[in-house]
Amino acid sequence: MELGLIGLGKMGGNMRERIRRAGHTVIGYDRNPDLADVDSVEQLIAKLEGPRVVWVMVPAGGPTQETVEHLAELLSPGDVVVDGGNSRWTDDIQHAELLAAKGIGFVDCGVSGGVWGLENGYALMYGGNAEHVAKVQPIFDALKPEGEFGSVHAGKVGAGHFAKMVHNGIEYAMMQAFAEGWELLEAAPEVTDVREVFRSWQEGTVIRSWLLDLAVRALDDDEHLAKLKGWAADSGEGRWTVEAAIDHAVPLPAITASLFARFASRQDDSPQMKMIAALRNQFGGHAVESK
Amino acid sequence: MELGLIGLGKMGGNMRERIRRAGHTVIGYDRNPDLADVDSVEQLIAKLEGPRVVWVMVPAGGPTQETVEHLAELLSPGDVVVDGGNSRWTDDIQHAELLAAKGIGFVDCGVSGGVWGLENGYALMYGGNAEHVAKVQPIFDALKPEGEFGSVHAGKVGAGHFAKMVHNGIEYAMMQAFAEGWELLEAAPEVTDVREVFRSWQEGTVIRSWLLDLAVRALDDDEHLAKLKGWAADSGEGRWTVEAAIDHAVPLPAITASLFARFASRQDDSPQMKMIAALRNQFGGHAVESK
Amino acid sequence: MELGLIGLGKMGGNMRERIRRAGHTVIGYDRNPDLADVDSVEQLIAKLEGPRVVWVMVPAGGPTQETVEHLAELLSPGDVVVDGGNSRWTDDIQHAELLAAKGIGFVDCGVSGGVWGLENGYALMYGGNAEHVAKVQPIFDALKPEGEFGSVHAGKVGAGHFAKMVHNGIEYAMMQAFAEGWELLEAAPEVTDVREVFRSWQEGTVIRSWLLDLAVRALDDDEHLAKLKGWAADSGEGRWTVEAAIDHAVPLPAITASLFARFASRQDDSPQMKMIAALRNQFGGHAVESK
Amino acid sequence: MELGLIGLGKMGGNMRERIRRAGHTVIGYDRNPDLADVDSVEQLIAKLEGPRVVWVMVPAGGPTQETVEHLAELLSPGDVVVDGGNSRWTDDIQHAELLAAKGIGFVDCGVSGGVWGLENGYALMYGGNAEHVAKVQPIFDALKPEGEFGSVHAGKVGAGHFAKMVHNGIEYAMMQAFAEGWELLEAAPEVTDVREVFRSWQEGTVIRSWLLDLAVRALDDDEHLAKLKGWAADSGEGRWTVEAAIDHAVPLPAITASLFARFASRQDDSPQMKMIAALRNQFGGHAVESK
Repeated sequence: MELGLIGLGKMGGNMRERIRRAGHTVIGYDRNPDLADVDSVEQLIAKLEGPRVVWVMVPAGGPTQETVEHLAELLSPGDVVVDGGNSRWTDDIQHAELLAAKGIGFVDCGVSGGVWGLENGYALMYGGNAEHVAKVQPIFDALKPEGEFGSVHAGKVGAGHFAKMVHNGIEYAMMQAFAEGWELLEAAPEVTDVREVFRSWQEGTVIRSWLLDLAVRALDDDEHLAKLKGWAADSGEGRWTVEAAIDHAVPLPAITASLFARFASRQDDSPQMKMIAALRNQFGGHAVESK
Repeated sequence: MELGLIGLGKMGGNMRERIRRAGHTVIGYDRNPDLADVDSVEQLIAKLEGPRVVWVMVPAGGPTQETVEHLAELLSPGDVVVDGGNSRWTDDIQHAELLAAKGIGFVDCGVSGGVWGLENGYALMYGGNAEHVAKVQPIFDALKPEGEFGSVHAGKVGAGHFAKMVHNGIEYAMMQAFAEGWELLEAAPEVTDVREVFRSWQEGTVIRSWLLDLAVRALDDDEHLAKLKGWAADSGEGRWTVEAAIDHAVPLPAITASLFARFASRQDDSPQMKMIAALRNQFGGHAVESK
Repeated sequence: MELGLIGLGKMGGNMRERIRRAGHTVIGYDRNPDLADVDSVEQLIAKLEGPRVVWVMVPAGGPTQETVEHLAELLSPGDVVVDGGNSRWTDDIQHAELLAAKGIGFVDCGVSGGVWGLENGYALMYGGNAEHVAKVQPIFDALKPEGEFGSVHAGKVGAGHFAKMVHNGIEYAMMQAFAEGWELLEAAPEVTDVREVFRSWQEGTVIRSWLLDLAVRALDDDEHLAKLKGWAADSGEGRWTVEAAIDHAVPLPAITASLFARFASRQDDSPQMKMIAALRNQFGGHAVESK
Repeated sequence: MELGLIGLGKMGGNMRERIRRAGHTVIGYDRNPDLADVDSVEQLIAKLEGPRVVWVMVPAGGPTQETVEHLAELLSPGDVVVDGGNSRWTDDIQHAELLAAKGIGFVDCGVSGGVWGLENGYALMYGGNAEHVAKVQPIFDALKPEGEFGSVHAGKVGAGHFAKMVHNGIEYAMMQAFAEGWELLEAAPEVTDVREVFRSWQEGTVIRSWLLDLAVRALDDDEHLAKLKGWAADSGEGRWTVEAAIDHAVPLPAITASLFARFASRQDDSPQMKMIAALRNQFGGHAVESK
């Protein structure tokens, strides 16, 4: 089938390649003319035969919003827009309404895969009406990993990004689990070969997992991670997971702890611990470290 | 080689079978005569040719302590005792000293595998002097999973149980990660098929893992886990992980949150939340739920 | 001075009384005619001489929104609206803009005091332009506790509710601190008189506080809180505090733990702990509790 | 009455002074002869008429252990030893047994008060048999704050230190509560005068407390705590509180979060966050900060 693809960055570019390898036609547009197949979104729309499917793969927030609004003007009833970016699920519901008013369908799709996706496939979680999903299905089938798993129609509009968001929340806490365990092993004088302990866990244990394999790769590069700083960014998904949990009154202690650990990792000094130091000094004359 | 094995319960019995399948001779003793090959530890010792290797697979704490003390009396210099139970690593150091005073070697070994171990092999983490480990190596090789991973000489005496303990701490937080994510997905009205979301994650995602596979199996048995109570025991390892972290001043927010979630799961009512209710009532006249 | 007061519930009614005791004129409106001094907001506005000050004390969200919009139509340039309800600070900024477009000032005011406020005064935190605040100052002075503390011009529009929100976040964690300590003392067989321990802490300790005094009152009513259920509601402020922290990438581990403890207290059974039970059963054949 | 007092450091010296002001006789010994009234513990014992009361105020652990053992040799049946240091409650039980074998009584006493105690009195929590406590009661009455609160017979041997330990655990979480709130207020652009917000909270709020008063004092010294480093030591009591909670399967999320925040505050870089950075880099090619 034919697909219009807007956004050809690191993710979008590789996805175009994987879809083409599966035998589909992809017409790609990007603001960067070196990456693009056409000069404008208008050209892209013109080149696609209806009913069209246009996949949006641009940064969440403003860029996605503008692109969806632009497509609402250009597309025709019966066309379908897929948002495969990292949008918040609440945006999806607004975008679906905007497009539905013009008779245009909408499917949201959370995409996982990173730098490994081109070769191994992308895990896909999508939400929307069955008829809209059906129009995109050949593309989903091209992008997903081989085998029986790796893609799911998770529910209504928003369910795709919601499921991907929760995936990332789980990922935060799994990474934190390995990170905490690694720090504790490194601190114990009895354990003299932490890297080999991690390596050994890859078979026969309860915690064997792809993240563990990646941890071993990282330790093979740099046994004590001496070259790295203990600094970690966080994407929107971790924050939104906690916000969604608050909306639904679901306690998420481990996932939230993982998010907060990242916040703290980016502080040169901790304001709250200054207050702790100040209070200890006030009531007990305890030593403080001054700058 | 020949091995004496004390303790033939669910774990020990399967381990005897796996070691025998690898061609070794195992003489097993258990308090339950239906399980045992010999009538007493003395008989077991007498049947083994020196230098002997005796593997202890009895409950941690008192039973292991008594067994090690008994072996210290019965064994000869050059023999080696392996504690493959769930002992705390601090016990290992005492046991090694007790046995070393008689010229007997000691190796501690954390064993992971549960009901899957007989067929798939047991992940092994062991600690001790290289010469003592070398005497047990054929047994380790028989028990471990096939392939290049699954066993490790983690360090000094205690390192095996320490590594296994940390493995379990990581396991707690990974399980909590999936559990939190599952609860949030179940709470979201957009996501109509949570089980299929979990199933799809088995390929192409960052969180693919054996625990995820098990979660899918559990959901296939009982889609909304309606038959289960939200109640979870905790073994010593989770608690010891937090205590070891406190000893080393290592923050473990996600692992500790996972342990506390289990504590809370076993309370019919939460005393601390009664106090919260009482305080809210005192200052604000807020509604409380009375029994 | 003259004040229009909309909303005469438990809080508003007592505030009217305290302001009147200070010698000011209050014209109050409430949907409940038994509480109201006038029959409509229109009447209330008509009775006030300009420049008017109208204090809104209705539930946050829709009711406050509608009241502010209504006042935007009825009031005149130079008048000032005060929102003394529990609005989210982000609402304040919208309300200020809406009113500013008509030349009407806006001040947001977080009010603490509960059932004790009428006699002891209400702690007030307000935000807005200095000129608008100045018009309300006599009312603030009437409501606040005697003495030098208890009211503050915290900053720009929104700062009042933001400060009150953080106050409540701190309150959550302080309550949780006492609650956790109480549960631990009750669990320790050595400590035979927990209530008297709490009582004794009221002098000479680092933790002496009004909340501690309230805890002692509660324990005097019911020594082991046997009549209460461990169930606690949460108001918007605790949730908003965590959301604000996420916006600003500030880690709030203790406050968030306190919020999550309340969420958990309201669950008859914990979905996430069902998943923990299911996973333990899958990998280890561990006992589960079935319904 | 007469009291022997061993240990005349910052705490012990001030306590001697407060007891003397109440009209009692104190004979003090310290390793530092400049502080001591006598040259040896033997001299101290010789100067006291039986039945003697000897208060031990030396560092917890080894020094307290040695002093108690020394006193077990020197004292006579009917004498009473008080441990007023920061001992772990589990030590108390051993010390009581050691002394009981010689007919000597033992009372453990947790003491709170810091640099403010001499003038304001010390909060006291003690444990032991009623007959032993009775012999020390006049000293307790001299040390405690004026008024009806500030001292308690908390229970059996160990209950005093247990109660003091829990007091400190609560203190950790209360300090953390204020610290988190302060950091969030400082991060919010709407709130322009955080110090005045804290000051205002001293009346009419739910969170008014001595710790809040101290926070205001600290902010008056240094409005944004710019001179301090976000670094906080932790004493044994915080750690023991969490360990006691684990023993009793009591979840302590807020207190534990507060302890872990202190651990993290003392790390120049976070090993666990290096692992997070390494994992993100492995799966997503995410940017890491290198040293």
